[in-house]
Amino acid sequence: MDEIKVKVTKPYSVYISNCSLDFQLLLEDKRIKNIFIITDENVYNNLKKFIDGLKERTIGIKILKPGEDSKSLDTILSIYNELLEANVNRETHIVAIGGGVVGDISGFVASTFMRGINIIQVPTTLMAQCDSSIGGKNGFNYNGLKNVIGTFYQPKFVYIDINFLKTLNEREFRGGLSEIIKYGYVCDENLFSYILENKFNIRERKTDELLYIINKSAAIKGNIVERDELDLNLRQILNFGHTIGHAIESLSSFQLSHGEAVSIGMYLEAYLSFKIGCLKWEELEILRELIEYFKLPYFNKNINYGEIIDIMQKDKKKISNNIKFALPDKVGHAIITTDMTNKQIIEYLNELKGRF
Amino acid sequence: MDEIKVKVTKPYSVYISNCSLDFQLLLEDKRIKNIFIITDENVYNNLKKFIDGLKERTIGIKILKPGEDSKSLDTILSIYNELLEANVNRETHIVAIGGGVVGDISGFVASTFMRGINIIQVPTTLMAQCDSSIGGKNGFNYNGLKNVIGTFYQPKFVYIDINFLKTLNEREFRGGLSEIIKYGYVCDENLFSYILENKFNIRERKTDELLYIINKSAAIKGNIVERDELDLNLRQILNFGHTIGHAIESLSSFQLSHGEAVSIGMYLEAYLSFKIGCLKWEELEILRELIEYFKLPYFNKNINYGEIIDIMQKDKKKISNNIKFALPDKVGHAIITTDMTNKQIIEYLNELKGRF
Repeated sequence: MDEIKVKVTKPYSVYISNCSLDFQLLLEDKRIKNIFIITDENVYNNLKKFIDGLKERTIGIKILKPGEDSKSLDTILSIYNELLEANVNRETHIVAIGGGVVGDISGFVASTFMRGINIIQVPTTLMAQCDSSIGGKNGFNYNGLKNVIGTFYQPKFVYIDINFLKTLNEREFRGGLSEIIKYGYVCDENLFSYILENKFNIRERKTDELLYIINKSAAIKGNIVERDELDLNLRQILNFGHTIGHAIESLSSFQLSHGEAVSIGMYLEAYLSFKIGCLKWEELEILRELIEYFKLPYFNKNINYGEIIDIMQKDKKKISNNIKFALPDKVGHAIITTDMTNKQIIEYLNELKGRF
Repeated sequence: MDEIKVKVTKPYSVYISNCSLDFQLLLEDKRIKNIFIITDENVYNNLKKFIDGLKERTIGIKILKPGEDSKSLDTILSIYNELLEANVNRETHIVAIGGGVVGDISGFVASTFMRGINIIQVPTTLMAQCDSSIGGKNGFNYNGLKNVIGTFYQPKFVYIDINFLKTLNEREFRGGLSEIIKYGYVCDENLFSYILENKFNIRERKTDELLYIINKSAAIKGNIVERDELDLNLRQILNFGHTIGHAIESLSSFQLSHGEAVSIGMYLEAYLSFKIGCLKWEELEILRELIEYFKLPYFNKNINYGEIIDIMQKDKKKISNNIKFALPDKVGHAIITTDMTNKQIIEYLNELKGRF
């Protein structure tokens, strides 16, 4: 079992394992006797044996409907009610077993119930394992705005088990690759090269390659979170692909998965970077080809760029009038910029419509 | 203007002033251009001039109905909606002008909106000035349970203006004295002696005495918060009077004010301390006489102690089976104990019924 330490205000560890029994050992070792599980129907069915194995310590379990619709105030309230019924107290640990939605909802509940109770993140999707389970960001959608209500609340620890990835459907798995490509493309040239060289084995979900890319991504994420716990500056480079991506995701009424919206967002934002003279054409093409290899989308001709701008302007990261982007200026590195006007952005993106 | 520094994870200052113009100067000095005010109807009417003086920087104002009923989910949601309408972003500072309810609601909203925006606490009641505005605790009532949903979220700074106390009604002012007696009685013998010696001038709201007791209380609170930001141990001594007090407050359907419930709670808990041999009878009597001098209650013969126990057991601080108390063992000091069984507590408290 690998361990990555995240040295934030309240330090914690990310454990990366290849054997599901490790989780029991961790609970035993940390003397955690009293857990309340939050998961969703799909995860519960796929990991029934794992979850049933925790029965002895479980004082309650909440099984959500899968999907983004569960990231709502109604879900939050129904969990509060069940925590109260189960007499959850400050010794109880919430265990969030699932993807980003389960992690986000559980994190918010844990951070606000009785002014904060412990949470253990057990991410089961590739996306959650390499990205969203680390860093303490949580939230839910409100008034049609994604994650507009949320907190920063670090987990007690994160347990990543790569066996869980074997039961993912193809689309979920691919979605997670989007985030891993992102880490390579804007944070770590070596990781990006590794993905290029091992793309076949990654796509085939070979254990060694999965362990390598998850270890690398989790370490990058942990390191960035350490240096910018509250998302005030450095962490913003991880918004690469997400500024446009979130808007596309909303506009598609969540028909596109987060990972798919991000892969389109990455390509469009990298294209903007090319247009303002920051990124070379060849580097843009390497990105596009890799996205294509993993059968992820990099373009959608139905997008209305005016609408995208409107949504981006309402996005919570907005402070100045121009939209803020994290743009790659070479493979493995990015800059933060608010230099482009809305008019420029629309003009550049409309050019792409002619190409595809 | 006095300044007390609270050195928590994100350090901040508590300013104590005798001149309302100081607040403008602070905003100017800190270059805060963009505020959203949360207050209540009574405070708004009393401090209209002060609030109107902030007009230039104000992008929105939410005026709550006064009273505990406003500490609800409905209030939280209506504020979220108005923040969205006012296009609040991460540069906006929420300014909470009011007592405990306004401070609690505003703190929760600020900590959860867009994963946390800045909040400035401007407490206007004695209770909020000496206690609740410092330390970052916030919350709202849910399912009949007080503050069961909330977070820890430290303000950008706290501005205490003792002129605001001059417009308080008698009952509100007295309620605040409860908390100040608490600080003296379990944290600082000198403060307690000062209150005893200057009780007349305090009751008459003389400026010098108000400045002294607020400075002292705020410094004690700040110091304890520094050493126990998340209420894990030390801060629990400030629960003196509140363990029983909260239960009494709930049972009275909030007919008793918080301060009144706490003054009863202090006397009953001090009595328990006397019964288990921790506190001398004379010290108990000094407390009772001071409470009486300030026309606060120390007993209520309608209380059903069985019901109190039930409510205390549901209280969020409960971890073990026995109820946890912060009990004075001499003037200026307290211990934390879970030694008493529920049966003992009821027996001891029933004895008191015969006395009054």
